[in-house]
Order: sequence, then C-alpha cells, then structure tokens
Amino acid sequence: MDFELRILGSSSATPSANRHNTAQILTIGNQYHLIDCGEGTQMQLMLYKIKHQRISNIYISHLHGDHYFGLAGLLSTMHLQGRQAPLHLFGPPGLSEILSLQFKYSGTNLSFKLNFHELDTTVHKKVFEDKQLTVHTIPMEHRIPCCGFLFREKQKPRPLIKENLPSFLTPPQLVRLKWGEDVYDGEGKLLVKNREVTMDPKRSRSYAYCADSRYKPDLLPYLNEVDLLYHEATFADDLRERAEYTFHSTARQAAELAANAQVRQLLIGHFSVRYKDLNPLLNEARSVFPDTDLATEGSIFSVVE
Amino acid sequence: MDFELRILGSSSATPSANRHNTAQILTIGNQYHLIDCGEGTQMQLMLYKIKHQRISNIYISHLHGDHYFGLAGLLSTMHLQGRQAPLHLFGPPGLSEILSLQFKYSGTNLSFKLNFHELDTTVHKKVFEDKQLTVHTIPMEHRIPCCGFLFREKQKPRPLIKENLPSFLTPPQLVRLKWGEDVYDGEGKLLVKNREVTMDPKRSRSYAYCADSRYKPDLLPYLNEVDLLYHEATFADDLRERAEYTFHSTARQAAELAANAQVRQLLIGHFSVRYKDLNPLLNEARSVFPDTDLATEGSIFSVVE
Repeated sequence: MDFELRILGSSSATPSANRHNTAQILTIGNQYHLIDCGEGTQMQLMLYKIKHQRISNIYISHLHGDHYFGLAGLLSTMHLQGRQAPLHLFGPPGLSEILSLQFKYSGTNLSFKLNFHELDTTVHKKVFEDKQLTVHTIPMEHRIPCCGFLFREKQKPRPLIKENLPSFLTPPQLVRLKWGEDVYDGEGKLLVKNREVTMDPKRSRSYAYCADSRYKPDLLPYLNEVDLLYHEATFADDLRERAEYTFHSTARQAAELAANAQVRQLLIGHFSVRYKDLNPLLNEARSVFPDTDLATEGSIFSVVE
Repeated sequence: MDFELRILGSSSATPSANRHNTAQILTIGNQYHLIDCGEGTQMQLMLYKIKHQRISNIYISHLHGDHYFGLAGLLSTMHLQGRQAPLHLFGPPGLSEILSLQFKYSGTNLSFKLNFHELDTTVHKKVFEDKQLTVHTIPMEHRIPCCGFLFREKQKPRPLIKENLPSFLTPPQLVRLKWGEDVYDGEGKLLVKNREVTMDPKRSRSYAYCADSRYKPDLLPYLNEVDLLYHEATFADDLRERAEYTFHSTARQAAELAANAQVRQLLIGHFSVRYKDLNPLLNEARSVFPDTDLATEGSIFSVVE
C-alpha cells in the first residue's frame, strides 16, 4: 500500500517566484490527505496531476493565510465540479466561520457534505480514525492557535503461514491468530502457538507534520521514531533570535528534534523568501541529522512497508 | 501618459491548467488599478513583474470566489512587506466583513490604511475621482450583487499655442484658456478667442470592465464609444440558454453590445474551462464586431492619447 508524501508548497508567509505556500498531499492507500492549503493549492494539484476528487480529508494547522488561503477556492472547485463524496475538514476555531461567511455571500450551497471538525490545538488528541489509520493533533507554539498532525498506520495483521496451519481451525480462530493471539481449546489448553503459524506483520508507518512553531523540545514524545518528520525551518540558525521572536524554528533546531526523536528521515520546509538558495539550510540540518531533505515543490517521499 | 490594461486571468469559475481566474491591472499614469483578484493573482503579478506596491486601488466586482479569493493573500503580502501607502478597496457588501474576520483570526493588524468603499452594485455611480480619472460602477445582472467599472480620464487641458498668445494675459487667464474659455475684459469685451490660441486637447480615454452578467442591452448608455470594452464571454452562442440560466453571456452577445455601443475595441474573457481552444469564441465575436481580441493571460492592451 502506498504511504507517500507529495510537497506542493515550501514558502513561508508569502509565495515567491518559484515557491508556493504550504500544502502537502499524503497518500495512504488510495486516499489523499491534504495538509494545509496555501493560496494556489488547487493549481499545484493540477500541475502534478493529483485529482482533488480523491481527497477525503483536509487538515489546516492554523489560520495564517499562507496555510489556508487556497482552501475556499479548492472547496468551490470541488463543488462546481459536482463532488458528491463527503469531505472531512479539520481546523482550528474560526475556520468554519470564515468559510460559512464566504459561502453565504457567494450564494454557495455545497454539493457535498463538509464535515467540519474543530480542533483543540493545545492538546495531543486523536481526531480521525479509519480502518487503516489514526490521526492525532500535535500542539505547536505559534503566535496564534496552531497544531501539527501525526499520521500513523494501525497495527497490521500477522500474515498466516498456510502450510503450518492445522486444518481444524475455525474462521474466528484464524482472525485471532492474525491479530497475534494463540489458540486454546475450551479447557484452556494451548492448541496452536501464534508464532508457529504467523509471520511478523508489515510495519505500521508514520508521518509527523510539524507546522509553524517555535523550537519545542517537549514535542519529542509525539515524534519518537516516526518514519518521516516534516518540521518547519523558516530560518538558518544565525537568525535564531528572529525565529524565537516570530515563533518559528531554524534548520538546526528542526534537525535537533529529529535526532533526539530518532526519526528515520527529516524534511524541512516553510522557508523564508530571503533564501534563494536552500542549500545552506539543508547543510545546516544535515550537520546535525544527516537524513534530512528539502521539502520543495514536487518532491515525493515514500515510506516502504 | 500610459493607459494600459494587462490581463492576469481569463478563466471562469475554476482555474485550469493554463488559465487563471479573473484579475486585471489597469495602468493609468504611474498608478495601478487592480480589477478583481482571483486566486493566485499575487503570483501572476510576480510572473509579469508588476510591483504590487504601485497598486493604489482595488475593485472587486462580486463575491464569487473566482473574482476575489486572491485578495486576502495579496493584502497579507502587502502587509508582510511593510506597505505604508493607503489603499482604496471597492467591493460589494460582505467583502469587508469577510476580510475583517480573516484578519481577526490571523491576528493581523495591517501595516497600511485600507479604505473600504462599499459599493451599491445596482446603480451607475461615481465611486472614485482624482486629478486625472473618474471611476463609475456599472450595474450587472448576475446571481449575486455584481457591478462592472467604468474608468474614464477627465477632460484634459487645451495646449496653448505660445506664439499666438498676447503678452498681457495673466496666469489666471491662461488657466481659463487651457480649460476652453475665451478671455474678456472687465466690460465683457472679448479680448482673446480661445480657438485662436489653443489646440484641441488630447483625448480622454476610457475603459469599461463588464464583469459577470447576463446579456444586458440596457448597459449601452454606459458603454457608449468607450475605447476599450472588456465583456465576459463565458460561452459560445450555441450555449446561449445555459448562459442565460447561469447569468452569463456569450461571445456573440458581448460583440453585439460592443457593436451597438460603437466602442473602439472589445476584449472577451472569463472563458468556461470547456473551451480548450478559444478561437471559436474569438471568431464568433469577430463575425459581429471585428475589433475583438481575447483577454488572455499576459496580454497587454494600450489606448493611445
């Protein structure tokens, strides 16, 4: 199954000549999760031939325009193209009010059901769950309410080793084996030992999206050993004071978090427009955490099972 | 002095792979007037190297997203780049409320004064005037309140023919001559006949922007003999009923208005995404009004004095 992140925008605050504002598509199986939606996101989706019809969930980290000014346009386009499938929208207080006002004045009655989930950005809390996935908020420290999102595949079933399976097993017993249980008879006597008839399951993959925030080492418990960590790196470390003052982070700080959380791979983004060349930011992060990459427009990062 | 229109977007409803939503820059002298502001307008301004700092006035025709979803982003960028100069914003009821809500939740206190002028879209009325220009609303007929805008240079002074000027003329008399008056002495006796010492002034140029509307022949009095008429042409005439039903116009209808108003040049835009090739729309309009052009991205239309 796919577990793949596509970057649509990497610019902080304002777009620049070749960088768009924040938006990412996380593909899990055949569903798209859109994370933030800066202005022009619907055009970026077209550019990369990503069908917005397949977006099931949209997550907005906070209400600075560079993270959501493309949302009303994307929702309008979905509506104008006759979307029927319901959509889950997760965002901080205020987002629903803004969209409702825009749709009121445009006379828009959406063609699909928009399920709005208002987020408490101050807590780590499960906000979405389906058969294969959970999504939790990650509290950020920014100038306005802001959270990140932790996407984690659920535990996967243990594949059965067919040639080792006794023929007397019933379907419910087979299900329990897939989920790691041994099989006992009515008197509690062990009939089949799980480890002898199943293999280890495929890995449960994870992606943590850390939106705009000051350096916040107390995030570590949420980020521990995730496969893929995105962390904003608006500035290089020589502007650490400016980062602190504006509630942003530096590339070095992002890398320190990644190293301490022992993640597999770090992606940095949300670059200040002052950086035409991003290599100094990348090198700074890699000096602390070598498995770092730039989350620039069009990049794809896959996590294998 | 420049009187020049630059097209930033030509797509109706949703952007397409190579067409942006509506936005235009009208340059008059050294001032930019931004007319409508679809999503991505600030990126289009960058693409064409148009400095948003020089925009003095922004006009929003109506609150369908394809005409204003780029506005909050553009204003935010002006703010983030420290704009000091005040800005005039003209728009229908609701626009100010929407922006205020967005800025409230983003914690934005604009760095410049935003003078909002709420429009009555049902009347033809002067909404702006400076030394060189007047701007009037043009009532449209759309699904929601919508107006166009008529930009007209003021009458220009009559150049003096220096070699014909008697030496006794005082500065106030010279000013009156420039504005077409004859000069009399205290007893009402004609001293200088205007036509003998002045030349005809340069032309006062005009541009009429007709935003989304059903075909509306009662616009004719407002459009009479304008130099440049932009009129939406969402559909070709075989979809006239659909145009009527959706409160839009066809290319033929736009051309009929242009012909009846005896304008100099017609520009058509706001094309439905169904038209990959715009030539059928252009040819249809030209069959009625030959001086028609497509208002496509990047096009520039100048009006000479």
